[in-house]
Amino acid sequence: MGNSSDVVSYAEQLIACKSVTPARGSVFDTLEAMLAPLGFAVHRFVAGGAPDGPVENLFAIRRGLPGSRHLAFAGHVDVVPEGEGWTSGAFTPERRGALLYGRGAVDMKGAIAAMVSAAAEVPAQAGTLSFIVTGDEEGPAVYGTRALIDLMRERGEIPDLCLVGEPTSVNRLGDMMKIGRRGSVNVFLEVEGSEGHVAYPHLADNPIPRLVAMLAELDALELDQGTEWFQPSNLEITELEVGNPATNVIPARAKARISIRFNDTHTGAELAQKVTEIANKHGGMARPIISGEPFLTPPGAFSEIVSSAVEAETGIAPEASTSGGTSDARFLRALCPVIEFGLPNATMHKRDEAVALEDLETLVRIYRRIALAALA
Amino acid sequence: MGNSSDVVSYAEQLIACKSVTPARGSVFDTLEAMLAPLGFAVHRFVAGGAPDGPVENLFAIRRGLPGSRHLAFAGHVDVVPEGEGWTSGAFTPERRGALLYGRGAVDMKGAIAAMVSAAAEVPAQAGTLSFIVTGDEEGPAVYGTRALIDLMRERGEIPDLCLVGEPTSVNRLGDMMKIGRRGSVNVFLEVEGSEGHVAYPHLADNPIPRLVAMLAELDALELDQGTEWFQPSNLEITELEVGNPATNVIPARAKARISIRFNDTHTGAELAQKVTEIANKHGGMARPIISGEPFLTPPGAFSEIVSSAVEAETGIAPEASTSGGTSDARFLRALCPVIEFGLPNATMHKRDEAVALEDLETLVRIYRRIALAALA
Ligand SMILES: [Zn+2]
Ligand SMILES: [Zn+2]
Repeated sequence: MGNSSDVVSYAEQLIACKSVTPARGSVFDTLEAMLAPLGFAVHRFVAGGAPDGPVENLFAIRRGLPGSRHLAFAGHVDVVPEGEGWTSGAFTPERRGALLYGRGAVDMKGAIAAMVSAAAEVPAQAGTLSFIVTGDEEGPAVYGTRALIDLMRERGEIPDLCLVGEPTSVNRLGDMMKIGRRGSVNVFLEVEGSEGHVAYPHLADNPIPRLVAMLAELDALELDQGTEWFQPSNLEITELEVGNPATNVIPARAKARISIRFNDTHTGAELAQKVTEIANKHGGMARPIISGEPFLTPPGAFSEIVSSAVEAETGIAPEASTSGGTSDARFLRALCPVIEFGLPNATMHKRDEAVALEDLETLVRIYRRIALAALA
Repeated sequence: MGNSSDVVSYAEQLIACKSVTPARGSVFDTLEAMLAPLGFAVHRFVAGGAPDGPVENLFAIRRGLPGSRHLAFAGHVDVVPEGEGWTSGAFTPERRGALLYGRGAVDMKGAIAAMVSAAAEVPAQAGTLSFIVTGDEEGPAVYGTRALIDLMRERGEIPDLCLVGEPTSVNRLGDMMKIGRRGSVNVFLEVEGSEGHVAYPHLADNPIPRLVAMLAELDALELDQGTEWFQPSNLEITELEVGNPATNVIPARAKARISIRFNDTHTGAELAQKVTEIANKHGGMARPIISGEPFLTPPGAFSEIVSSAVEAETGIAPEASTSGGTSDARFLRALCPVIEFGLPNATMHKRDEAVALEDLETLVRIYRRIALAALA
């Protein structure tokens, strides 16, 4: 059985594996070596080919009594690149004072370590526990969690609840959980005209004024007012491109790109359609790429379990938020209700990423409480 | 004295000199060898340094009696690059049927040849004739005609009238002369914001909506309704640039460029000021570059001379136009009234540029008539 100091050792072992996205090999060997002794059956597989793969994934399960409830811990062991300016090595975990430094300390090898430690403290007869761990969450995520979900469906291992360990806390451990995420759609816009000389505009057809009018209309859209749980959907123009070096030439083509983050009053397809209609109205074309639909696990039994566990260990009730970017929860929602809760995210993706040793130990106790309540 | 077949030989000799802009050396040697026997005092000089020079220029003058009138023939012996796909060599003049082929045949070595032939047929005692010929009209034109104007002012050689031999005819020789040209100003626009993640727009400041609003206002401007001699001034947006490859990033900076061709109801400075005010209003910056002020030689004695000469030789009265791009007339106007008249421009700057042999000979007679009337 585990104890509170195991979590730091687990985190150090995981950080020491250089697992820049997409991750394969040693970091999974290390995780398997932690889970197998705890009674988990570990399934590893490599999926996909270039350019978005190959990617390694791990599904581990420890079954309770037949018919018992099933909680899945989900996350990733890949990390963003090291970057520059670290005080100690990004992949050489180092404790200094009350902190453990290393790439992935908070996003999210620390949380994976806490999940393993928590699993060690949950009796096997309490119910079914599983780990859904990908080596590609920070990258294109094409062959990561989606491939794990396919595997679980094939095997009929559908959890009742799923807890994702992304670093959702902001100022201190426990202040925020995510009960949903906005969806995301990017649209590539293009207007074609015909090239000519600025001195003879009647012989050319400048595409830029049509693109400008299209963008002005898109920018003025008010998609919604937000909902009880979501902020208003938001559209940003992120790119303009003509590429015309000649001051006396009217260009033949003008391009732009927008990014919409949207709540559950929309679908990606509906927004793609709306933007396409506006683009067409101004004589342009739209190529939408939906990278995630919104999801919401409405406040209820599951959020109550997470909230009570957090409050019992930290004294604060987490805010139920739907803010921020996308995460693999956008895929996992297809299996069962999903909530995300994890470490403070202040240093994620930055140099000198670090986790407080005390937070790691508190997180083990929070995850243990969540597991026991979810399986009850 | 010349005769009508000299003009073809002169044109062939000039075309055979490879004089891609900026031109120096042999093409000027060739021109000097034509003008000196006709009694012209030839002054050649090289002006400027990299990157817009050095450039060779030629001023030649044959003085009439003291106090006699002075007509300047103006033009250029540089040509645009050869390009691809010529039937015969671009710098190997070739007569096929009724046409003479070669780079510069119409723009404007053919016209220079016709001016030389005409000068040969104008008696020296008729008045003062000069040639203002640059090797850089097709390039940046920084050290070309402007340097010639400086030289003429220093020497006190100010013509009464100036005829520029640019290819102004459209469908047939004689159908159009230019009595003015629009001015030109380019403005580089930029809006600064601050970078951020599209999921957290309140932490960023997207510059693109402000640029779009600025461009929409500029595009909607109605600068004027045109004048008796000029078409309405026109503004074209010619470039958009952000350069943001990341779909999830709000960029820090957005740029655009506009080009205004304007008539003589405006000055470059006034338009630069107007655009700058609109840019500032939308939180952006403007960097205007005025590349030429408009000019007009109002219809009167000089246009009557040109028109009568053209009509006498071709049977048609040329339209007095101010359309099209800029030419060196924008500089020469500082010296005296300027009109442009030359060959049909259908093949200028194209492969298989060619002039009709008959047009060359007709142009000699037109230029001779203009010279005799202008000096009378
Ligand atoms: Zn993460
Ligand atoms: Zn020319």
